[in-house]
Amino acid sequence: MQDPLGAFMPDGLFSLQETEVGPLAGLTFAVKDLFDVAGQATSAGNPAFRRDHPEASAHAASVARLLSAGARLIGKTITDEFAYGMNGINGHYGAPTNSEAPGRVTGGSSSGSAAAVAGGLCDFALGSDTGGSVRVPASYCGLFGLRPTHGRVPLVGVVPLAPSFDTVGWFARDAALLARIAALLLNREAVASFEPRRLLLAEDAFALLDPAVRTALDPQVKRLKDRFGSVTAINLAGPMGNLENLREVFRLIQAREAWTAQGGWVTRHWEDISPDVAERFHQAAAVTDVQVQAAEKQRVVYTEWLSELLHEGALLCLPSALGPAPRLDQPIDSLGEWRLNTLRISCASPLARTPQISLPVAQVGGLPMGLSLMAQQGGDETLLAFAGRFTQTPEPGSQLDVF
Amino acid sequence: MQDPLGAFMPDGLFSLQETEVGPLAGLTFAVKDLFDVAGQATSAGNPAFRRDHPEASAHAASVARLLSAGARLIGKTITDEFAYGMNGINGHYGAPTNSEAPGRVTGGSSSGSAAAVAGGLCDFALGSDTGGSVRVPASYCGLFGLRPTHGRVPLVGVVPLAPSFDTVGWFARDAALLARIAALLLNREAVASFEPRRLLLAEDAFALLDPAVRTALDPQVKRLKDRFGSVTAINLAGPMGNLENLREVFRLIQAREAWTAQGGWVTRHWEDISPDVAERFHQAAAVTDVQVQAAEKQRVVYTEWLSELLHEGALLCLPSALGPAPRLDQPIDSLGEWRLNTLRISCASPLARTPQISLPVAQVGGLPMGLSLMAQQGGDETLLAFAGRFTQTPEPGSQLDVF
Repeated sequence: MQDPLGAFMPDGLFSLQETEVGPLAGLTFAVKDLFDVAGQATSAGNPAFRRDHPEASAHAASVARLLSAGARLIGKTITDEFAYGMNGINGHYGAPTNSEAPGRVTGGSSSGSAAAVAGGLCDFALGSDTGGSVRVPASYCGLFGLRPTHGRVPLVGVVPLAPSFDTVGWFARDAALLARIAALLLNREAVASFEPRRLLLAEDAFALLDPAVRTALDPQVKRLKDRFGSVTAINLAGPMGNLENLREVFRLIQAREAWTAQGGWVTRHWEDISPDVAERFHQAAAVTDVQVQAAEKQRVVYTEWLSELLHEGALLCLPSALGPAPRLDQPIDSLGEWRLNTLRISCASPLARTPQISLPVAQVGGLPMGLSLMAQQGGDETLLAFAGRFTQTPEPGSQLDVF
Repeated sequence: MQDPLGAFMPDGLFSLQETEVGPLAGLTFAVKDLFDVAGQATSAGNPAFRRDHPEASAHAASVARLLSAGARLIGKTITDEFAYGMNGINGHYGAPTNSEAPGRVTGGSSSGSAAAVAGGLCDFALGSDTGGSVRVPASYCGLFGLRPTHGRVPLVGVVPLAPSFDTVGWFARDAALLARIAALLLNREAVASFEPRRLLLAEDAFALLDPAVRTALDPQVKRLKDRFGSVTAINLAGPMGNLENLREVFRLIQAREAWTAQGGWVTRHWEDISPDVAERFHQAAAVTDVQVQAAEKQRVVYTEWLSELLHEGALLCLPSALGPAPRLDQPIDSLGEWRLNTLRISCASPLARTPQISLPVAQVGGLPMGLSLMAQQGGDETLLAFAGRFTQTPEPGSQLDVF
């Protein structure tokens, strides 16, 4: 196989099939190079990290389970360094090509996984989503992407960034396949079964978008509203007051956890890390206990508020990103600012541990733009089923397009 | 291969090897028939449950990961029905033979896994531990057994009993192998690194034992005490007042969770379930919301108390069971009462989500009896390393037997 999109690691193409039978037989997939594949060292997007670590002794638990279900693994994809980024530009391994948005980033940190699925190189791909790393590239590349409820997919064999936010997520070109993967990867103890009854709209998040982006999403929001009969506007920031505050709560906790997880190695390798990511780690090291403790308290308050809001059948509609994929050829500082602004929208589900799905239902000037739905913790299956019905093209004259 | 011990399911012997390289190459293992193996229906110890459910579409995440590390899976072992038992007597599939204690039960619910490892049929085996189902059979069969920190090993593909207590655990004949499995199965985000500095002794738990059992454990407790220099007696019941209350908190929450997880199926299959397990489910169905809410509150209080106690390097020593394995040929009611009494000792780590290891360091009248060590959440690696040093036979005259 070829890799015309630069989605895979330099020597990251191979073919691994454990069985030819199973529910995923005939399907191919790729995994972000944050996931262990037995016999290969995991880079986490950094060549020195890769050299410093032994070959993985076993597949990541999620990878192993997919292989046992008959899927064929075709390779390891590029990730932003330590998954601590959102743009899909890796200083060592490059920026995968976004086949759906020429000259634009794929988004990250699951950049190569999104690029590979969008470009048709494989049927689905695993990524990880700590602060938006599946939902944002899904939005930029015109894909379905799921961030599951925190804790429902095992992280064993995945390099950690911020464990209380880290999730295994995945991309596919249709909702049905997204759901088939979910049926294999999600644990079953934490299912919250309910019928979607109410629609909430994150007004403050939509207010951050350019008018052209809002206009592009409007018809889909209208379709949602028609299905539910009504919509209730809320502020995603909730008790945090505004989305800047919300993002700051996330940033502080993520920084502390990232420093705890990777600071030891990073301290010995400052010169091996791209400047923008190194700067992020420097800032992470400087976060104080007092800041973290205050942020943790805020997180509890926020989670209780959002859980209450989503309780009993509400789905929350919000943009998947701040807009379509930014141009590749802009200054790194400008992309860094874009990342921080994007986090204002994407950090809600990580903070509250809720599932969120990005649906490729809109375009802005020919570029993909995703719309997201969030459900209560454990509502992954409901979210996937609803997304399947909502995105299915109804037969002409059909009356089936209801739930 | 033969199964002279009746440890495996009737058609449960096979050979599955995915790769011949990896850190577990050359080792064989078995898994409790609560774990999915692709292409086979999982019984959870009940023939009707097995008939009612389709063949598993993928291996349980833990099984898949071990296979990817080179271990060879030789079969599925008998479990107590729904893992809702502790004696190792399955009304449908029989009672595996305890090679280390003739005429005695193996303990359960991971009965066949313990029997297979004790009898040398495989090198290690996976079980599950909700209320003692690894530690108790390890104690009865003279094995090392680990119940890890709750949540550190994925449960995807394992039939749930009581999710907030359910853990994947495992058995081996030596501490080193127990630790090698841990290195593969435990997630790395939740590691609590510390040096064991203090020894605590669960006085009220030891007080439940027959004098002969206490006498058998005494020299090992003395060895522990010599290593730490001192020992602090505590009551395992802590703020619950007595161990009967502690057990009741566990029983109520377990009952509610078991009913939530399995009640739907059970309600349609009362006649297919062994009377003692059916009775347990009847009682579970009768537990009230008020009881559960009160128990959940008590659990929080207990967990905070125990976490505080174990903080900063304490290990807690307690018996693994109430005594050596009971005789097979006694009335089922008497074994049921033995189970409830055993839970008074074994429910502490499930309630507080702490790791606990059972060490085969004693015998009572020629029968194995385990001694347990518990650490704070995330202290699994420390516990395993300490257990390895503690159970290693020192060279004559060696000065190395210190930590």
